[in-house]
Amino acid sequence: MTIADRWLLPDGMDEVLPPQTLRMESLRRALLDLYYRWGYDMVMPPPVEFLDSLLTGTGTDLELQTFKLTDQLTGRLMGASADVTPQVARMDAHSLRREGPVRLCYCAHVLRAQADEYQGGRSPVQLGLELFGHAGLEADQEIMQLVLSSLDLAGARNVHLAIGHIGIYRALAGEAGLAAEAERALFAALERKAVGEVDAIVDAHVQDPSLAEMLRQLPRLHGGDEVLERAREVFAGAPAAVGEALAQLTALRTSIGRDSEQVARYFDLAELRGYEYHTGMVFAAYVPGYGQALAKGGRYDDTGRAFGRPRPATGCSMDLKLLASLDEQRPSHDGIWAPASESEALARRVSELRQAGERVVQALAGQTTGARAHFCDRELIEHEGRWQVRPLED
Amino acid sequence: MTIADRWLLPDGMDEVLPPQTLRMESLRRALLDLYYRWGYDMVMPPPVEFLDSLLTGTGTDLELQTFKLTDQLTGRLMGASADVTPQVARMDAHSLRREGPVRLCYCAHVLRAQADEYQGGRSPVQLGLELFGHAGLEADQEIMQLVLSSLDLAGARNVHLAIGHIGIYRALAGEAGLAAEAERALFAALERKAVGEVDAIVDAHVQDPSLAEMLRQLPRLHGGDEVLERAREVFAGAPAAVGEALAQLTALRTSIGRDSEQVARYFDLAELRGYEYHTGMVFAAYVPGYGQALAKGGRYDDTGRAFGRPRPATGCSMDLKLLASLDEQRPSHDGIWAPASESEALARRVSELRQAGERVVQALAGQTTGARAHFCDRELIEHEGRWQVRPLED
Repeated sequence: MTIADRWLLPDGMDEVLPPQTLRMESLRRALLDLYYRWGYDMVMPPPVEFLDSLLTGTGTDLELQTFKLTDQLTGRLMGASADVTPQVARMDAHSLRREGPVRLCYCAHVLRAQADEYQGGRSPVQLGLELFGHAGLEADQEIMQLVLSSLDLAGARNVHLAIGHIGIYRALAGEAGLAAEAERALFAALERKAVGEVDAIVDAHVQDPSLAEMLRQLPRLHGGDEVLERAREVFAGAPAAVGEALAQLTALRTSIGRDSEQVARYFDLAELRGYEYHTGMVFAAYVPGYGQALAKGGRYDDTGRAFGRPRPATGCSMDLKLLASLDEQRPSHDGIWAPASESEALARRVSELRQAGERVVQALAGQTTGARAHFCDRELIEHEGRWQVRPLED
Repeated sequence: MTIADRWLLPDGMDEVLPPQTLRMESLRRALLDLYYRWGYDMVMPPPVEFLDSLLTGTGTDLELQTFKLTDQLTGRLMGASADVTPQVARMDAHSLRREGPVRLCYCAHVLRAQADEYQGGRSPVQLGLELFGHAGLEADQEIMQLVLSSLDLAGARNVHLAIGHIGIYRALAGEAGLAAEAERALFAALERKAVGEVDAIVDAHVQDPSLAEMLRQLPRLHGGDEVLERAREVFAGAPAAVGEALAQLTALRTSIGRDSEQVARYFDLAELRGYEYHTGMVFAAYVPGYGQALAKGGRYDDTGRAFGRPRPATGCSMDLKLLASLDEQRPSHDGIWAPASESEALARRVSELRQAGERVVQALAGQTTGARAHFCDRELIEHEGRWQVRPLED
């Protein structure tokens, strides 16, 4: 192996260097402080768990994304965490076992076996919130509000919020009672918004003309707030669950508008992301110039069933690496340069300055690089027997 | 698989729950702030790298500790980081390529295939410092001082610092010119402090009576400051490198005494931990009641050679999980409880309090758990048309 090969990092397994690390650390603190002030308790899941606990009830996408490892102590298969949410659900159901609503947050470096469709990295720093134990929409509204505040803290501008509701398709498909194969085909066509295909499948398999029309309209119902008015007409005769979903989306529209006037809302009633585990509203936040969603989330009730304690749940997750890349201002990386010296007076002065919160970089004997190379804007100089902080001369 | 099985975590892969997470987070910030004020730049290595870059020049211990994964994109073997130090050395040598001394710090969740000999976990949160590019003892002294300050911030009392110097044995063994098998046997006997065995091996293989006596004395030279005086006598006729090592240890004794009067120093001249990569002074810090070292470190010059840029280096690492367990005071987890309500005046008041840094936990409609269950010590009550913060009534 040549020296050049040893420098290579696996695709998507990125390192973060200064000053970007400084920006990440400061955003990490601002976000965790925000969640703390809202009553979210921090949890830290293990980076590796037995595969069975990690993948229970999470669907095949996550299984493909999970690196597998053999535990040398037990010979059992383990997986590296690719998504913290199921781990936090296990902690709520089993480790904490608190009654009533439980608010949790986390920040963890996760690993993905494959890059996602939008070229996201394979080692995101996943930051997220989960609210367990409350089925009401207030919980979803709270999560959404915190996502918008998080994006604001990260410096995101022109945020575009795409909102859907898994309950609409689920209710219509249930009512249609399609055979498994036809339903799979319909699902796939809806995911691709292939309206021609949807029409053809519906014409061939759905007898009830009113239901057929609703399914045909579904992939056409996306756009601004007006989509909700159109949907109310289209779904006037739909199962009750569809009406409830629409009422939730309408309430979300109002609360988002109140919390954040600058966010563009986009409703997509055929959005089926995470259909295997989501159960209610789902959302993703975007900004121009980034293909990846900055934040994703939604309701996933009944989580914890595999751990013996089913609970309503709603939450969101973000990639701290991505969020920290939004604000391109160079963090102010200033400090005071101190010469190499064994002077005790200097050592005392350096120590006082550090205790006062200053960054003081002291040269080591024989060092040839200087203040600017170490991001200092001031220096300590001995003047009339005292060590004084002076601006660097140009 | 039963529900009970799904709750199990692999041995040593621990989760951290509140309020311990709060303590960890606050210690993490205090330590990273300390390192920042000393001019250490934070880096974040990837949690996984190609095995060749990860294990180059690090010795077989680390190889056994490293979980292996196959990269599905390239078919090449990757390893999960079990020790961040070699990754940071790669970053210094290749990614940063700065001239002169470079100070770096990191905090990363690492994975170990096996628990270490003292029953440490297999998923420590490794926090560390590395100082590259300076061969002088000031660099080692700076690292040692920061380790002691870190332990102090973590609330460690009765710290016991064990200090050795790899250069002593290396110089004596080089002078003795033992055959490979005899040297391996001697090394193993010294590691176990088996003085009888050391005597036998030395008698059988070392001709020079003065050198033989020095090797026989080596495993007997451990204890307080007086060990250094005894060593100066024992090693009066030793190779120059031994004298230099002793001079370094003597200087360290002085600087540790000056920086921290309460630390008990213990010198062990036959300490051989990390012999494969350490090149100078080595140390480990202990407190009563903990079998594991709280901090370990030492000099490892010539790092980066595998990456084409050999550099002097010294550094240390700690486990944040372990450090955060030292202080058993329950963190003050207080806050203000707000009732479930759609009052806009309440929403405004809650928002103001949060902006002022308060933790405000708002009940959700129908919630039956109350203020105390959510660690609140005050509550918001409407009184004469205004929302006021009041202490909780007992």
